[in-house]
Amino acid sequence: MTKINQFARQSVDKSTEISELSTVGFYDAQWENNIFNHLIRRALPEHQSISSENGWLAEHLATPHTSVLDFLTRQMPLTETAFYTIAAQLLGFDEELVAYGLDGRQVFQTVGLEMVNISDIYHAWYVLLNTHTKNGLLFIDDLASHGYFELTNKRLLFNDKSLPTYDTKDLIQETVWVETSVDSDQDGQFDLVQVDIQRPKSVETIPILLTASPYYQGMMIKESDAKVHDVNKPLEHKLSNSVVYESIKYQNNSVVQNVSARVIQGHTTVATKKFTTLAGSAWDLNNYFLSRGYAVAYASGVGTRHSDGMQDTGSPEQVESMKNVVEWLAGNRVAFTDRDSQIAISADWSNHNIAMTGRSYLGTLATAVATTGVAGLKTVVSEAAISDWYQYYRDNGLVVAPGGFPGEDMDVLAELVYSRIADTADRMRTQKQWQDFQTKTVTQQDRQSGNYNRYWDARNYLNQVENIKIDMLLVHGLNDWNVKPRQVYRLWQAINDNQYGNKLILHQGQHINISNNRSLDFADQINLWFSKKLLGINNHAEMLLPNVIWQDNTSAETWHQLREWGTQTNHKTYNLAPDTLVTERANSEASFTDYLPETLFKKYTKDFNYWREKAIEGASEIKPTQLSFKSEILEESWTLSGEPVVHLRVKTSQNIGLISVMLVDYGDDNYLKPHLTSYSTMIDRGMNFAQTNLNEFEMKKSRYKMISIGHTNLQNRTNTWQNDDLVANEYVTLTLKLQPTLYTLRKGHQIGLILYATDFEMTLRGNQNVTYTIDYGDSTLILPELKKLS
Amino acid sequence: MTKINQFARQSVDKSTEISELSTVGFYDAQWENNIFNHLIRRALPEHQSISSENGWLAEHLATPHTSVLDFLTRQMPLTETAFYTIAAQLLGFDEELVAYGLDGRQVFQTVGLEMVNISDIYHAWYVLLNTHTKNGLLFIDDLASHGYFELTNKRLLFNDKSLPTYDTKDLIQETVWVETSVDSDQDGQFDLVQVDIQRPKSVETIPILLTASPYYQGMMIKESDAKVHDVNKPLEHKLSNSVVYESIKYQNNSVVQNVSARVIQGHTTVATKKFTTLAGSAWDLNNYFLSRGYAVAYASGVGTRHSDGMQDTGSPEQVESMKNVVEWLAGNRVAFTDRDSQIAISADWSNHNIAMTGRSYLGTLATAVATTGVAGLKTVVSEAAISDWYQYYRDNGLVVAPGGFPGEDMDVLAELVYSRIADTADRMRTQKQWQDFQTKTVTQQDRQSGNYNRYWDARNYLNQVENIKIDMLLVHGLNDWNVKPRQVYRLWQAINDNQYGNKLILHQGQHINISNNRSLDFADQINLWFSKKLLGINNHAEMLLPNVIWQDNTSAETWHQLREWGTQTNHKTYNLAPDTLVTERANSEASFTDYLPETLFKKYTKDFNYWREKAIEGASEIKPTQLSFKSEILEESWTLSGEPVVHLRVKTSQNIGLISVMLVDYGDDNYLKPHLTSYSTMIDRGMNFAQTNLNEFEMKKSRYKMISIGHTNLQNRTNTWQNDDLVANEYVTLTLKLQPTLYTLRKGHQIGLILYATDFEMTLRGNQNVTYTIDYGDSTLILPELKKLS
Repeated sequence: MTKINQFARQSVDKSTEISELSTVGFYDAQWENNIFNHLIRRALPEHQSISSENGWLAEHLATPHTSVLDFLTRQMPLTETAFYTIAAQLLGFDEELVAYGLDGRQVFQTVGLEMVNISDIYHAWYVLLNTHTKNGLLFIDDLASHGYFELTNKRLLFNDKSLPTYDTKDLIQETVWVETSVDSDQDGQFDLVQVDIQRPKSVETIPILLTASPYYQGMMIKESDAKVHDVNKPLEHKLSNSVVYESIKYQNNSVVQNVSARVIQGHTTVATKKFTTLAGSAWDLNNYFLSRGYAVAYASGVGTRHSDGMQDTGSPEQVESMKNVVEWLAGNRVAFTDRDSQIAISADWSNHNIAMTGRSYLGTLATAVATTGVAGLKTVVSEAAISDWYQYYRDNGLVVAPGGFPGEDMDVLAELVYSRIADTADRMRTQKQWQDFQTKTVTQQDRQSGNYNRYWDARNYLNQVENIKIDMLLVHGLNDWNVKPRQVYRLWQAINDNQYGNKLILHQGQHINISNNRSLDFADQINLWFSKKLLGINNHAEMLLPNVIWQDNTSAETWHQLREWGTQTNHKTYNLAPDTLVTERANSEASFTDYLPETLFKKYTKDFNYWREKAIEGASEIKPTQLSFKSEILEESWTLSGEPVVHLRVKTSQNIGLISVMLVDYGDDNYLKPHLTSYSTMIDRGMNFAQTNLNEFEMKKSRYKMISIGHTNLQNRTNTWQNDDLVANEYVTLTLKLQPTLYTLRKGHQIGLILYATDFEMTLRGNQNVTYTIDYGDSTLILPELKKLS
Repeated sequence: MTKINQFARQSVDKSTEISELSTVGFYDAQWENNIFNHLIRRALPEHQSISSENGWLAEHLATPHTSVLDFLTRQMPLTETAFYTIAAQLLGFDEELVAYGLDGRQVFQTVGLEMVNISDIYHAWYVLLNTHTKNGLLFIDDLASHGYFELTNKRLLFNDKSLPTYDTKDLIQETVWVETSVDSDQDGQFDLVQVDIQRPKSVETIPILLTASPYYQGMMIKESDAKVHDVNKPLEHKLSNSVVYESIKYQNNSVVQNVSARVIQGHTTVATKKFTTLAGSAWDLNNYFLSRGYAVAYASGVGTRHSDGMQDTGSPEQVESMKNVVEWLAGNRVAFTDRDSQIAISADWSNHNIAMTGRSYLGTLATAVATTGVAGLKTVVSEAAISDWYQYYRDNGLVVAPGGFPGEDMDVLAELVYSRIADTADRMRTQKQWQDFQTKTVTQQDRQSGNYNRYWDARNYLNQVENIKIDMLLVHGLNDWNVKPRQVYRLWQAINDNQYGNKLILHQGQHINISNNRSLDFADQINLWFSKKLLGINNHAEMLLPNVIWQDNTSAETWHQLREWGTQTNHKTYNLAPDTLVTERANSEASFTDYLPETLFKKYTKDFNYWREKAIEGASEIKPTQLSFKSEILEESWTLSGEPVVHLRVKTSQNIGLISVMLVDYGDDNYLKPHLTSYSTMIDRGMNFAQTNLNEFEMKKSRYKMISIGHTNLQNRTNTWQNDDLVANEYVTLTLKLQPTLYTLRKGHQIGLILYATDFEMTLRGNQNVTYTIDYGDSTLILPELKKLS
């Protein structure tokens, strides 16, 4: 059964309701009798005669035996049942209505839609217009999608959200080149970066959603694949050393020398490069706002097609180039109509209020630009973003791949988006310099040691969080093993206490978008949020939207509001003991050997998903390479919130070692699938514009679910930049924080912990014959428990 | 390596070339010097200043060391190499250009693009504009996609094909209700059927592409799934009888009695029901023509949402309702603005020339309407269409499912598209009548006997082929085991000798579209074809387009022209012998038993793809249930064209029996995959309109490929409507025609034949313990060999 969770609906006073209804054509003082008849007929925008409207009314029911047409014609009294029965059909819940015996109230109740007393019919209608249809839109947006509103190219707000009254069939689509403050190709001129702009022909100035996407100008998949590193390599001993953080701290030497700015030869507001189709993928959320009077800009930054410069993943120069685009949009920087003429172009259509949007790399750059504190950037909606690149390709002194991408690294990603090679002349001109540049990157990223260094410090945006002077809206999947949850957790912890109204949405998916989920009013929330941040509407977005919205992992389509993530907790501590997690301390030790027969090793390297399945099941073929533990069966459900911690006393048979840990929920039950199911229903992003599939997380039966993971090099017990000593067969102690989570462990389930070394999806896979021994006398698992769901 | 095959390019004389070039802005008598400079700069429609154009020119190469900009600036001589190097980049073959050492001529040669002497630069440019880019469009269409043409809503022809000069962002989208000549719900009024129309605001009258799609108004998947028949049922003995065809022949009693036509209360040309988004899927080929000045209409026919009537798969009433839509579009019938007002609306924008389009059920109805000989229908483009419903759900006295859909039947498909239940009032009003109607269908379709009867005869359009008075353009996949190749073969054989210029395209795919394949100029062909058929342009489409275009199964992206299919053949006959196909006759017999242990039986019922794989491999678990034969290794390649025939002398251990046959090509080799690989490149259907993925068939290694299949009930040796006697353990002889093919068997391969009974994908699966014995002394395989590829 469909459930809908709406957070972005504002209550307004009666006079505001009437005034807004009147503005959108759903109030008329003349309608003294038969108001409902007027309302419903106006809600059929595709029907342009009484007789045509009657067609719709005759096809739908007011009562089990009366069509809406008969109901209206006979002027039968409008009961609450009749109202909600008709309303259910207006919202598209016909199937549910049949299932619930043609009683619309039951549909509203079950789906979780708001019902009010219909004696105030205008109030009931106002609430209904602000209620979601089955198709992922507010009813009023659904009406707009069917042509209810004239496309005036003027802003129309309803319940403080912009309505799609802008003509997306007549967009201006143009390209400019922003002059940046960096010279990443060292040619003595500031790099120019291309920006593609889509905007409605608004009569007023409008805000801009900027998506910084290095992918946008094309992906060089063949070239990038050729750069993927071999991960079937041994872990090597690192000479111990003593390194203080200050010695590897990145200092931004932002003074660029011997670089000249272009002389401006003229000024214009008219672009000379137009386009009919975006060069790359549109960001769906941007499409939703294009029809609602927002401009959209796509920038790929330095080192991409049609721009200058070298490609340097996550670098200060890359971030600066994106920041510079914000500056131009805010009226604080020069851009040109092309790469040669030096005719400066200004965005006279911009209201100088900018938000950045995007997921993954795109969201990462949004976060990164926020840490520059650039003027004009008013908020970011950053989804599944990296806050610290070290944590993306490394972990605790180990090379650790993002889930699904073994062998990927900073240079591999750079190659993927060095799209300048797509143009033959640019390819020929820059290929030598590019190869040299990549050689330097390979050295600096240092796969040899796996340690944190100045290169990584320059790409750790957590260092600059104090510069964030805006409200951040963060979205992340708790099952995102690509950009892992720690990326958002650390950022959230860092900005949580600042004076801004930051928001966090945690879903149970992997590395995906939730903007088209049926069960959550994500786009409405952003619409309300942007009204405040980019349009300056004095609404209650910060108060109305919860600090944390969290998707329940125990049932489908259920979203809760929380005050916090990972702070308001108690701790539950388990001791490790043979096969079990217990309260009393054990006094024994146990070993596992991280070595596999060649055929099994090869099988696992070819299919790491199969490996993980076997590892979690504890299949006999894999058992010698792990130690696993299960708690007693839980007598009560409880919710884990934050970072699970494993404390271990461990020794290895050689002077090298890595420890991997999985935290698992065991129990035959329904679990949410971490990927989305796409329905054939399309959601409209305006009026027949950029339609996209409606999605939802569904549940399926399983026996277990991995809920967290962690990895560490035994030589990085102190920190990630210093090598600790490690001697064969000598015990050391270490404390390992696993990826944070927010997860309800259900009554009847068991908590599982698996200790192992090689992670076939993420770590190096040397297949070295190393035996690890754990001293249970000093090994614990500490789980943070949410005090209460509030 | 990409290959492109163009069939629709017309040669025109010099003066026509100049005149056409002039019309589209690529000729100017003033350009005496530096013509190429003008041409190439005009070919950059998104660049709207010299300086912006220079940006493009600087990013591309004329020679390995000279950008196009330098080349033009320095006025270097335009060599053939430089021309085709630049041309390769204009067409998007940059990657190929780099691979071929920056020599554009090599790219043109390898891809199969036409090169001409460039001394006549206008001729070379004319040819280039008519050459395909890498992105699935003619270069001139690609320019249009990037905004080259003003959207005038007036027709502009180039090389006798319509250019996309119609504004798809400003379409009229409206609905009408056609009054049909049928009363399938027997309410005493002719059924009204809804038609959705999309059309550009053309200043002239325009032709219409009509797609008859019962799916268009929605699919009732849950209800349909509930109707799927159990196929794990025994085959039953049929009492022998003697039936003459005349006794089951369908007579169209078209006089409908006691039904009244609606009184017309008024006339209009303005619709009162508009829509913003199509109710169902658009047909991609239609989108291509919307931007080219064709209107598009979608009709779902009787028994679908917003229409009257009952749903009766393939029935004369369903076909008549679609024919009636053609009649309205041709100005010969009444339609209304809605279901109630009786205001007649006429299509004053129609030029009264109609083509029908679509694949599968959609193509089927196009074919069916063609067999009515209705005035106004000028051609059909019918893809993967059924010509005889009996052949779709039955074969030779057996219930035989379309591949992939065991248990589906006429009633199941009817349930799927009885979309009137989507509206609550219509559901409540009609559900009883609908259930009764389905009960009747279940009886008539007669799964019990599997025989052909009057019901099926009424749904066999081959009976009316003599009424086809138009040129048919048929498209079918030779690996379509859903709508099997016999469906098009029988139709082709029937119309081949008529006086019309019918065309046939045979691809090596399954049940898919080829309109977006990169290697074939499918849309251009239809564009040229429609110019002749629907616009009355006197072009050479019939002569230029081959009678048969056939995709080569031995190499990717290769299409041949043939004169015929399945007629100009010799025959090769093989005798069946133990494990082999040989020239001399064997004098032995052999048996197989169609019975499986329960666990294996269940496994196969759950995964018929796995079963087929094992069956073709002759896995030991399956061997007792089949007899298989292989020829010697072929010393020469040869091409099979038409229907393979198996002649058998066979007896069974019970008085029931069915024989299935697979013809297989064995040999370690590359085979074309029958499904399409979708590229991320999007093809434009106008100017940023309805973009869709570019596709291509790719090859992959395999050890075999099934090339044909056949099934028969041993009690239907004479024909499909009469039961022949069958006595246990008594030999009978039968001749079974397999599905037709057009397929090159390669040197080094072996021809394989597999005889078996239960086909887990297609037949009933009774798991009855029946032993079949084949007398090799009178059992042969006869293969038709194409005389020559011409």
